[in-house]
Amino acid sequence: MTVTAAEGFVAAGLHCGVKESGAPDLALVATADGRPVPAAAVFTSNLATAAPVQVSRRHLEAGGGQAVAVVLNSGNANAATGEAGREDAERMCALVAQHLDCAPEHVLVCSTGLIGIPLPMAPIESGIPGLVAALSPDGGADAAEAIRTTDTVRKEVVVHDGAVTVGGMAKGAAMLAPNMATMLAVLTTDGTAEPGDLRADLQRSVLDTFNALSVDGCTSTNDTVIVLAGGRAESASDLTHSLTQACNSLARQMAADAEGATKTVRVLVTGARSDDEARQAARKVAESQLVKCSFFGADPYWGRVVSELGSAGIAFDPDRVQVAYGDVVVCANGVAADHDASAVVSHLQARDVDVVCDLGLGIGQGTVLTNDLTHAYIDENMRTS
Amino acid sequence: MTVTAAEGFVAAGLHCGVKESGAPDLALVATADGRPVPAAAVFTSNLATAAPVQVSRRHLEAGGGQAVAVVLNSGNANAATGEAGREDAERMCALVAQHLDCAPEHVLVCSTGLIGIPLPMAPIESGIPGLVAALSPDGGADAAEAIRTTDTVRKEVVVHDGAVTVGGMAKGAAMLAPNMATMLAVLTTDGTAEPGDLRADLQRSVLDTFNALSVDGCTSTNDTVIVLAGGRAESASDLTHSLTQACNSLARQMAADAEGATKTVRVLVTGARSDDEARQAARKVAESQLVKCSFFGADPYWGRVVSELGSAGIAFDPDRVQVAYGDVVVCANGVAADHDASAVVSHLQARDVDVVCDLGLGIGQGTVLTNDLTHAYIDENMRTS
Repeated sequence: MTVTAAEGFVAAGLHCGVKESGAPDLALVATADGRPVPAAAVFTSNLATAAPVQVSRRHLEAGGGQAVAVVLNSGNANAATGEAGREDAERMCALVAQHLDCAPEHVLVCSTGLIGIPLPMAPIESGIPGLVAALSPDGGADAAEAIRTTDTVRKEVVVHDGAVTVGGMAKGAAMLAPNMATMLAVLTTDGTAEPGDLRADLQRSVLDTFNALSVDGCTSTNDTVIVLAGGRAESASDLTHSLTQACNSLARQMAADAEGATKTVRVLVTGARSDDEARQAARKVAESQLVKCSFFGADPYWGRVVSELGSAGIAFDPDRVQVAYGDVVVCANGVAADHDASAVVSHLQARDVDVVCDLGLGIGQGTVLTNDLTHAYIDENMRTS
Repeated sequence: MTVTAAEGFVAAGLHCGVKESGAPDLALVATADGRPVPAAAVFTSNLATAAPVQVSRRHLEAGGGQAVAVVLNSGNANAATGEAGREDAERMCALVAQHLDCAPEHVLVCSTGLIGIPLPMAPIESGIPGLVAALSPDGGADAAEAIRTTDTVRKEVVVHDGAVTVGGMAKGAAMLAPNMATMLAVLTTDGTAEPGDLRADLQRSVLDTFNALSVDGCTSTNDTVIVLAGGRAESASDLTHSLTQACNSLARQMAADAEGATKTVRVLVTGARSDDEARQAARKVAESQLVKCSFFGADPYWGRVVSELGSAGIAFDPDRVQVAYGDVVVCANGVAADHDASAVVSHLQARDVDVVCDLGLGIGQGTVLTNDLTHAYIDENMRTS
């Protein structure tokens, strides 16, 4: 149940001193034999790109889409740190490469934590030798533990799909940034793929998983999803399916652990003019402060849902829209529908809530996973210290 | 200090029974002599348009850009009410027209309150005769009182600009919808303008006032700003300046009374490639849940501000951005700047906070007015009943 589930990978995690709390804060995932394998990544679209994102992107290009290892720290995002931050990220890679006896370009790097504070390099430099020495097929849980920030639990996944295994770990309360920024995920597989195909597989896999998740509409400076494909399995089948399953599981684990959330809410929009319009409408509903307050209160105020659909910037006809909570239709043809109010209340009081909106205009559909907006979210985010 | 400050206008407000609380819920603003004058309006961009918006838009066209009166109710938005809702809105206008002896097309209508519930017409029908009878040059405060929903205070303004007077009233915690939806504003003036010019004046006036205000990023189904120009003043000067002053005052009153807010925050973006990009960036910062939580906690976490600028969809260079709280620069050239931390804390603890972001890319600038995200906002919005 870890990032080392696929044969050919090792991992480690430990406390080096970035976090004052003494919690684990440094992780490494690597190929067991120290040789490069095809690698691909999807990075944040935020233009305020953190140093490790800039460095990993450059290494993937310079390394010909191959990598040996991914080194990650929590407790500091190394974002808004300028040239010094880029040098620090390069140094993390170089130190790992030195101990693994590989090229620095074959090491990728991720950071997560507070933005705008120089990365404390002394503890990281002193931690790396022990981190490399601790690499083991059993080190997955330690690595997953060491990338947590406000996560209350580790997030891990294993998918067996025919002859291929995908293992993964992640941190974060959303692709769209939690408290101290950042969603990170590292996946490994024994499947076989050329770097270009692997990138395409990964891009398809994140579309309806990590990219369909929104806690608060904030896109982090550090978001990164990396996959390493070791190629030890015999099958050479398409990896999209198993990667999607793994990403989906990790995304759901993030939604369930979103900051302060008491509910996981799936917003499904159907009947849109296109899938893109459906996704856009679902995101508008999912990111609405007012709608999210209603979820917290288990309040069946569908008027807010209709109002968000109408201002989502997509084709919309107020006389055709339908809204249901679970399978109970509360609004049909744009007006209140007779319904079983107690069934709605009991659906809204559950931990998992479904909001299904049909626009009545076409066959496009899309889903966004979100959560409620709570006092605890504010408490967690109103002060960083 | 009311909507009847300009000569030639009368108003009234009373409780008719839409609100169970017994609070005033029905208002009327009209020309003193019952004759039509040039009128213009700006309506919500939400496609889930409420019935009164549809009817007012039609009346302005059918009435040749002239109007005699505006009738408004609070306690029910008459939105997502379908054909019956449109008939109810028409009926409100027809009843007022009958008592004022004018054409129904010369009456405009606004509603504010809960979405998706049929408008209770019996109290409105029985209330209108008394409402018309109560019209008076002294009725402005009563009218402003009767359009409140979650507003804690009336919002009124008078601007004297040379020979021209503009009086106005408004309700709402934002153009971008508060709790029970809707920002409404009615302005009157003794200035002179043709309907087409009046519309252009009003559109220019709302751009940097009501449209530069964002409490929660939600665009209501009912937002409406109406101006009636009676033409009794001698001057025929451009009304844009005085209308802008009036709209600005009302917008600031709304920001100060935003739901649950403990702070009013002005986000100014300079150095953008264009004014439009600056406004877009300011809005992204102002609508960020994470940034708004920081304001509530008086936390100087500028990393979140930079992250929002980077994901605002505008030109951005992470190595050029500068961020200041008040006049204290906390981030320069994209990294932390030495600064007086106690000065920042004392600025952030005040009621009015300024965040000034310079992108270093051009001369475009724009401002958005917002507030903090608080427990009280959630309390006010988590349940509608």
